[in-house]
This record gives sequence, structure tokens and C-alpha cells, in this order.
Amino acid sequence: MISGTLFMLVLLCGVEAGHAGKVLVLPGEYSHWHNMRAIIDALVDRNHSVTVLVSSSSPTVQHTRKERFDFIVYKVNMTKEEANSVLRDMIHLGTNDTANKYKGDFMVWRVFSNFMAFLTDISKGMFHEDLLHTLRESHYDVLLSDPMMLFPDLMAEKLNIPHVLSMRATFAYVAEQLCGQMPAPPSYVPAVALHDHLTDHMSFIERVENMLLYIIHTTIFPLGLKFTIDKLYTEISGKPTTMCETMGKADIWLIRTYWDYEYPRPIMPNFKFVGGLQCKPAKPLSKDLEEFVQSSGDHGIIVFSLGSMLGNLTLERANTIASALGQMPQKVVWRYNGKTPETLAPNTKLCDWIPQNDLLGHPKTKAFITHGGTNGLYEAIYHGVPMVGLPLWGDQPDNLLHMKTKGAAVVLDISSIQSKDLVDALKTVINNPSYKESIMRLSRIHHDQPMKPLDRAVYWIEFVMRHKGAKHLRVQAHDLSWTLYPPIHRGHLRFSGTQR
Amino acid sequence: MISGTLFMLVLLCGVEAGHAGKVLVLPGEYSHWHNMRAIIDALVDRNHSVTVLVSSSSPTVQHTRKERFDFIVYKVNMTKEEANSVLRDMIHLGTNDTANKYKGDFMVWRVFSNFMAFLTDISKGMFHEDLLHTLRESHYDVLLSDPMMLFPDLMAEKLNIPHVLSMRATFAYVAEQLCGQMPAPPSYVPAVALHDHLTDHMSFIERVENMLLYIIHTTIFPLGLKFTIDKLYTEISGKPTTMCETMGKADIWLIRTYWDYEYPRPIMPNFKFVGGLQCKPAKPLSKDLEEFVQSSGDHGIIVFSLGSMLGNLTLERANTIASALGQMPQKVVWRYNGKTPETLAPNTKLCDWIPQNDLLGHPKTKAFITHGGTNGLYEAIYHGVPMVGLPLWGDQPDNLLHMKTKGAAVVLDISSIQSKDLVDALKTVINNPSYKESIMRLSRIHHDQPMKPLDRAVYWIEFVMRHKGAKHLRVQAHDLSWTLYPPIHRGHLRFSGTQR
Repeated sequence: MISGTLFMLVLLCGVEAGHAGKVLVLPGEYSHWHNMRAIIDALVDRNHSVTVLVSSSSPTVQHTRKERFDFIVYKVNMTKEEANSVLRDMIHLGTNDTANKYKGDFMVWRVFSNFMAFLTDISKGMFHEDLLHTLRESHYDVLLSDPMMLFPDLMAEKLNIPHVLSMRATFAYVAEQLCGQMPAPPSYVPAVALHDHLTDHMSFIERVENMLLYIIHTTIFPLGLKFTIDKLYTEISGKPTTMCETMGKADIWLIRTYWDYEYPRPIMPNFKFVGGLQCKPAKPLSKDLEEFVQSSGDHGIIVFSLGSMLGNLTLERANTIASALGQMPQKVVWRYNGKTPETLAPNTKLCDWIPQNDLLGHPKTKAFITHGGTNGLYEAIYHGVPMVGLPLWGDQPDNLLHMKTKGAAVVLDISSIQSKDLVDALKTVINNPSYKESIMRLSRIHHDQPMKPLDRAVYWIEFVMRHKGAKHLRVQAHDLSWTLYPPIHRGHLRFSGTQR
Repeated sequence: MISGTLFMLVLLCGVEAGHAGKVLVLPGEYSHWHNMRAIIDALVDRNHSVTVLVSSSSPTVQHTRKERFDFIVYKVNMTKEEANSVLRDMIHLGTNDTANKYKGDFMVWRVFSNFMAFLTDISKGMFHEDLLHTLRESHYDVLLSDPMMLFPDLMAEKLNIPHVLSMRATFAYVAEQLCGQMPAPPSYVPAVALHDHLTDHMSFIERVENMLLYIIHTTIFPLGLKFTIDKLYTEISGKPTTMCETMGKADIWLIRTYWDYEYPRPIMPNFKFVGGLQCKPAKPLSKDLEEFVQSSGDHGIIVFSLGSMLGNLTLERANTIASALGQMPQKVVWRYNGKTPETLAPNTKLCDWIPQNDLLGHPKTKAFITHGGTNGLYEAIYHGVPMVGLPLWGDQPDNLLHMKTKGAAVVLDISSIQSKDLVDALKTVINNPSYKESIMRLSRIHHDQPMKPLDRAVYWIEFVMRHKGAKHLRVQAHDLSWTLYPPIHRGHLRFSGTQR
């Protein structure tokens, strides 16, 4: 009984619930910022003092707003609009929009060199000696980052504080494998890829393809970095290093998925799954929206959003979609701010912005048409709403493939669908009970965890503050050279044979 | 807000806290039974109905005692004494005791053939049609087992119920790798082995040795099973199968360690770490024991136990040890039931049995002399007591090596130590503050988990009951043939190069 008291005393030496810690946050942009906000709000609720470090060119983070946390804004040369354009080009690389903008020639090279200019600009502001001095004087307990924006790991090293990163899976798990030491056997762990079609059940040919994806990514990625970002890292760090080596020093990786979404695969002790941390019960809708929803009667409603990053659909695409929606007996709430389609039917309400989580949690909601961003997808899992997917770019095709494989979504190609395709897909997910059953199964898995995702994120951030790191969860592989633990060890060359 | 209610309803369909589930337990023997008892008690506390299935020859499980749970005892031909002898021979294989008993010739063969006779005897009782009929009629929700005793996985299959197993690491992680699909890269994951000296920091030569250990174990183990236990499994199952295949169907693996003890390594989503689940705060000691402890003054006491499985030390060894203890300024509580050593000093109290957890949790306790069984080791971590290790067999050398590597123990060879060695070791762990600091660091890691180990074990057992399994945590690798996921994929051939 006495030892119990002893331990409490020991634990109290560090940062504890109610005892304020100091958290420095380097956030990502766009939807990543909303995700990080959820963690920041929870940290502030628990009396931690939070400072968000952000560049003057940040397209998403509104650092002039009054918040319950502080901003430190460092000045860079680029404007918000320029930074926005560079980042969007990177994210939309591979889509027709970017191809049209650059008319094909040297597109990849131009997008990347713009991005390098952006990074150089950022790094000059971020690692200015005056700023570093101020930050060091503030004695933060932990740095929390979204590695979508680069250099947080270098900053943690410069300030000599522990680092917790929060991220979604990278293509072919390159960061998880090469920087986080996660084994990903290609025989059953499909590489996350653009326009993916691989699941954890693969044919022989698909396994070969999967292995090639891994090999190509894990070769090209370090090679691509070597002459670009790694050079910047070495320059800033003042000693030869790589992005991967620096990132691998992170104490905890908060992965923004969970086994409701993921195919089971090996994981590392310092990977903590926090998918859906931004989800919460639905709040009541505004009066007129509630009236519109109630007017749907027993048919219920369809919620439709392609996210905040899409510019405008072409009017032709918008008309095809609007005409399909008009054929449904449900009412539709469509987040859309382009020119009103001529085919728009009275059952469809266009909104500049929608309270997406509240709508998805409404008992009248029957289906969700989504581009497949991780945040929206987790809100659909949380509230148990089957999906029709219209993936646009990035991890969206892969996200929606997971939902399709698990029986909770129908996925269409937005660039080629006809009205009939969308009508059929909506009727399928609404009328075929297997889609609702599948999403409810995922929802039950999501809700039945020992700890809520947001609580888990906060727990491990506080753990790192209490213990000044979490080295006991970090594998020794980080300290081995590639000759001792080359990529072949991580699961490659594993594709032969036939499925039994 | 309404969806919240909906989910509660969905969750309530399954087995929930307060809603009684039916648990069938197939326990292990010796200290494994005490460990399982802790889980059973917690399940009973949460209103689950627990039935322990045990053979009439069980050396440890006292099935005639009145308990808060039921026993089903199946009759076998062997007596308790015969079973005890067979099991002890298996456990002590490789020690001098067994060597002397069988005088060398064909020892391994004789021990194994006795063990096979024991297994055949057990299997006849366990899979008798009448018993299976009774068990099926009882409609259990889950089978909880310690795979130290064989066939629980087959029983789960026969009864068509989910299976949760609870185990400590196997040699070279053969079960985890071959049956649980865990990757174990030999470059930094040391194979658990008899008289181990490998840690997660290995030289080139040690890596070669480690890889050979893996290769030998993962080759010999399946080969050894093929003509023995796998044949029994196929016979009982009525279709060609292996122990490993059947074991691999378990929904959850409750691993009885944690990262306080383990070197970080890749894990699987259905591995849940519950090391130290039997630990609890110390209770007050009996009056005379407390008086003895208090009489130690500021010097404090040393707790000494070599576990319950050791027969008697030779009088020579006992004298060497007793003489060492007599040279310490501390008082010593020694669990010992052999002939009293002539060298016994007045500072040492011999006891047939000791309240080990209560003694280790006493504020006057300065050190723990232990054989390194997992249970005692976790009690020492829980209460933060540095150790002197005298490992005897099985996983004990490996257990104590972990504690030595982490700076919390000095390890000696009981068969060759002189009094001076033990005195020096005790003085070191008591007087050099680094040992106390190290064990307190492990203790802090142990106590700072999102969920207590016992609660975690209960949570996942209840989860499996609520959801009728946990297939979403089980990797697809289980359904791949060895050509698709051969041992090389699991991390072998990874030893070249030098440490940087």
C-alpha cells in the first residue's frame, strides 16, 4: 500500500493531468490543420499551454484569430497565395488540372522546383537564429507536428525536445518503413498508391505489382530526397543527415487510422492509432437545415461533399451529378459553390458550407457522397453511414478502396460517370442492407476501443512530456546501418507462389 | 447526439460490462495457473461465469476446492504424480537434475516420448464425445487458454467459439513468428533462448549467432512437431492440420510482458501486452513477519525466493548462499524448505512460503534474489526492487538478461557462485544507486500505461465475446501458404555488415 503512494509521487514529478505542460505545434495545412486542431483543443482543455508555430504564408492557419492558444508567426518571402499555389500543385500532381496548367512539359520538374523554393523560403524563416533563441528560451516539453509540413523533426532536434508526429499513411508506407522501421511484407500488405486497386487479398500478378510498387517507391523516395530535401536537412542541421533519419527520431507516431479502416499488418510499439480523433456526436442542425432534412420523410437524406480543396466542377460534370441527384427519392444536401447546374432538382439543396459531422450523425442520413478524405471517411465510420466514393487525388482512391473492400462503399470515377451510374450507386448503398451492415460493423469496431482516439493521442503526448521521450518504444533498428538492416529485411522479395 | 444512443444500443447486443458472458478456461500448470487465476478472478468480479476445464492429473489446479467459478474435470489414466513428473522433466530438460535422472542415454527421446504419452492421455479425456457434447450444450462465448497445455486451440475449433490465448514469449519467438505471423528481424530482435546472452545491441558475430538460433528453431520446431504433435492434432481434428495453423486462428494473443521488460520490436495488431497483470499493491504483513522486517532498521531487508518448482538446493549450495547472506547488514527473508544450512546466520529467516508481493512492496525491501520467473520479475518491476538473479531453467536466463541489460539486476550462476560473489552482487544492487534508478524507470513505464494490464486482458476477452471474435486484427498472412510467405519474409538472412 505504501509503494502505491511512492509511485504516485514519482509520476507527479513529470507532467501530469492538471499540471500544465508546454506544447509547441507545427501543423499541416488544409484538412490536416482541422485534424490537429482537435488535438490542440483537447490539450488546452487539459490545461496545457499550446503554441502554434506557423509561417506568414500559411494558406490555412488563420493566425490572426483570437484562440485559446498562442501563435508564433515567422516571416517568409512568399505570399499566402503563392504558397497555396505551390502546395496545391504538389497535392494535385497527377491530376488533369495540374497537367493542363503546365501543359505537360517538365511539369513534374517545375512543380518540384517550386516546392523546393517554398521549402527553402520556409526553412530560412523557421530556423532563423532569433526565432530559435526565443523558442529555446520558452522551454517547451514536446513538439507536436504533422510531417506534411517539413522540418518539424529538425526543429525538435534544434530545441532538444521530444517529438510526437501525427500522420496518415504515406505512399507504399515509405516513411513508416524507411523512417519508422515498420516491416511491410508485400505478400499481404498492399502498398498505399495512387489509383490503388490492391487489397490484402492479392493474386500472384497483384503481388508482383505490389512488390514493384514497394521497390520503386523505396528506391525512388530516398533517391529523390538525396539531392533535394536531404541536402536542405544537412544544411540546416549542420551535419550530414537525411529527412528519414531525423524523422525516425520521433518518440511517438500518431497514425490517423485504426483497424476499422486498415488491413491488419505488423506495427511498431511507438505507432499509436488515433484514426477518427476529430469525430464527435452530432450537434443539432440549424432550424432551416433541420426543416429541410425533416421534409425528406421516410426516404431520408443524402449528404454530398467533395471537400474543401476542390475548385469548381466543370458545369458539365455538375449537371450530370445534379441530374442524378434529382432522380433520387431522398433529399440531398450538397456542399457546392460553383455555378448552379441547370439540371438541379428541387430535392437538392446547395450550400457553401455544411455542418458535415452533424449531418452525418443525423438519423435521417442514408448515404454520404464523398471524395474520400480521411476526415470525412472517419465521420462516416463514426456515424455508420454507407458511402458513394468519387475520389479525386492523393490517398483518396486508396481510402475509398478500403471502404469498398470492407463492403461499406461503392466507388465511381467522377471524370467519366453518367447520371445513371451515380443513381445506381446511391440506390445500391441505400437499398442493399449489406452496405449499412458493413459500415455498422466498422462503426462498432471504431467505438469499441479501450480508449477513444483523441484521448489516446493526448495520453501519449502527455506520456512523452512526463518521461521526456519514449525511447523504450523505439526499435534498435533505427541505429543500424542499411547494411545491417537493408530494405530486403523489411519484407521485399516476397511474392512467389500461389494463394492456397 | 442521436447516433450516440444508437451505438450504445448496438454495443449492448453483445456481451457487455455487467452482462454475464460464459468463459471456458483451459489453464496452464504451475506458476502459469496463478497468472490465469488473476484473469479468472477479474472476470468473475465482472459477473462472467467461468468454467475451468482440467484433467484429473493436473498437478497444480486444485479442482476439489470451492471457488467462485466451476470446474469440469475429465478423467485420464495418469495420476497427478505421473503427470507432474513428465511435465517437470520437460521443463527441466537441459538441467543437471534431468541429466542425472536419466543418466544421459536417450534422455531427450525418453522425456519426449513420456510427454507424448501424457498428451495422448490428455487428448483422449479432453476430446471424449460425451465431454464435447456437454461443452457444446453449455454455449460458451469464448475459450481462454494458456497454450503451455496443448490442444486449447483445437477445443475452440471443436466448440466453434472464439479463442483468446495468454502466453509468455516462446524460444526464438517460434510460436509468435510461425503461428502468429510476427516478423522478428534477427538484426535487432534477439531470439529468446536457453542461457541467452543476446540483447537488441548485437555485434556482427552475435547477429550471426542470433540468425542461426532463429533458423535452427524455426526449422527444428515445425519438423519436430510434424511427426509428433501435428499428427495428434490431425487425428483429433479429423482433417490434415498442424498445431501452428490451429493456434494461428486465435483471435487475441495476450502476451505476458510489456515494453518495461521487452526490447522494442515489431508486433501484430492482435497481440495485446498484459505483463504484470497479477501485480497489485502490497497488503500488510503478518505481525511476526512485520516485526522481523522492522527489526532490520535502516538497512532494510532482502527478499529471496527461487520459486515453487525447485526441489531442494544441495546442502553445499545452501551453505554457500546462507554464509553470504550472513555477511549482509540487511535482514533476509528466504523462502526455503530444505535442510537448514549450518552456516545460517541470525539475520536470515527461513520460511516455507512467503507473501512475496507484500514483501516486495514493503518500503524496507532493498533487493530481491530471484530465479527470474516472469511473475516474480514483474512484481519486482511493479514495486521497483532491484534484483540479483540466479536463473535456473526455461525463460529465466533470458528474463534476467533483460533486467541486467536495462541496469536493474546483477545475474550470477547458482551452480558455481562463491559466497563472495553473492555478497558483492547484493552490495552492488543495494548500494549503487543506478540499480534502483533503473528499476524505478521500468516501474514508471509499467505504471504509466493507458490501461492496467489486467484491465486490458479483460477488455479484449470481453471484446471477443461482444463481437464473436476479432478477425479485423488478424493479418491475411495466416491464409497464405509458405511459398507466399516463407520464413525468409519474417526477417531472416539479416545479419551482414557492422554496427555504425
